[in-house]
Amino acid sequence: MISVVLLGAGNVATHLFKAFNKAENVDVVQWYNRTKASISSYVNKVEITDELNELRTADIYIIAISDDSIGKLSENLPFKNRLVAHTSGSVNIHDLDKKNERAVFYPLQTFSKDAKVDFSQVPICYQALEKSNNKLLKTLAKAIGSPSYKINTEQRQTLHLSAVFINNFVNQLYRIAHEITDNKNIEFDILKPLISETAKKVQNISPYMAQTGPAKRNDKKTINRHLNQLENRDHQKIYKLLTESIQQTHGLKNKNE
Amino acid sequence: MISVVLLGAGNVATHLFKAFNKAENVDVVQWYNRTKASISSYVNKVEITDELNELRTADIYIIAISDDSIGKLSENLPFKNRLVAHTSGSVNIHDLDKKNERAVFYPLQTFSKDAKVDFSQVPICYQALEKSNNKLLKTLAKAIGSPSYKINTEQRQTLHLSAVFINNFVNQLYRIAHEITDNKNIEFDILKPLISETAKKVQNISPYMAQTGPAKRNDKKTINRHLNQLENRDHQKIYKLLTESIQQTHGLKNKNE
Repeated sequence: MISVVLLGAGNVATHLFKAFNKAENVDVVQWYNRTKASISSYVNKVEITDELNELRTADIYIIAISDDSIGKLSENLPFKNRLVAHTSGSVNIHDLDKKNERAVFYPLQTFSKDAKVDFSQVPICYQALEKSNNKLLKTLAKAIGSPSYKINTEQRQTLHLSAVFINNFVNQLYRIAHEITDNKNIEFDILKPLISETAKKVQNISPYMAQTGPAKRNDKKTINRHLNQLENRDHQKIYKLLTESIQQTHGLKNKNE
Repeated sequence: MISVVLLGAGNVATHLFKAFNKAENVDVVQWYNRTKASISSYVNKVEITDELNELRTADIYIIAISDDSIGKLSENLPFKNRLVAHTSGSVNIHDLDKKNERAVFYPLQTFSKDAKVDFSQVPICYQALEKSNNKLLKTLAKAIGSPSYKINTEQRQTLHLSAVFINNFVNQLYRIAHEITDNKNIEFDILKPLISETAKKVQNISPYMAQTGPAKRNDKKTINRHLNQLENRDHQKIYKLLTESIQQTHGLKNKNE
């Protein structure tokens, strides 16, 4: 049984609480937040507190709060030599106060407040300054059904950067398609199966192998017609840049062309 | 029962053949390709030919070949006043020879040669110059289990353009993430659940509502760190441009800033 004290009340903290609370071999002994009200609805399920001085003993303290506040909260912890982990994709492990044993337990996924989370689809990227803590972190990930990966700080920050490309930027391309279709009174729904299939395809083959379309074919006629169709100059710029990027990847364009 | 003659042997033609062949109320009376060899493996399932002069009578002739060849093939058809449809997202309906009744039967999806296609996930965008043909096109889509949408040429070309954004460009962002992670010896697999979830999220909420991340939060510290992390100048350009696009969408940036 792994005992956990959870700190924070955002999306990640809340979804982790639910997952830990359901896991057979995890005991959330306490949930801390600086304002008790945010977690008061869980009072029947777990001991809650807003006092760092009241924190109970646990195998691991998981800080799931905004990046900028992690260092400060770790300094304010009133104990030492215990295992403290943050859940951030970008904060350095050394930003945690060194009086405790430091670790990272980073769930690489997008969380919505209300949507249910299937933790089998949430890779946990973990890291520990003391090797002996790796086992506990791995066991904790397994307890909630998540695949886990031991990574270093540079790898984690690279994953965080990659996540911006495949989540935020991809979502912005969906948004642009939404704008373009809205302008011509077309239901965005028509595009949803293609959105799904595009994501599904790269689960089994590489994005390189999955590529198709006018840029890959070097079909200049279609590319030019598309550029003419685009009424928004920013959308034109994005079209051009990503077309060039595809052509670069597939050897259709010289760097200096 | 709708009788169909299929023309062409590419991915779209092949997947349409399989779907039509399975549909109860569709009869593929003949499959034409200019080189018989490409479809000879289907000889036990359907009559095949490479002679336009041998084409049989059917309710609809579906031309599923490359965009540039559609006009020419439609001219070479040795009959008139029959219903002829192409399957292209971008070719004008008027590019079909006017001696026949013209239509479009455009499946908005990405097809791989070997992957099985679930036609319930393939929206059929149809169009007919003679209104009376709309019913047959809709019935044909329904017969293979596809949702269908009646659209005009401009709408179809807008969908085709949008598909480049949500399929080709999205896939290129996956590719960039693949490159970035490969360079740091990180398994691309770690990112796959996030790719799936990002596509899944916009099935129910708008891309606008789904957006998160440093650009949306205007988190300049993270944005600058990411730009420094990117070793490839083209990737930096894409990061900057899509960050600006997100900020434009969410009112965080003036056009002239």
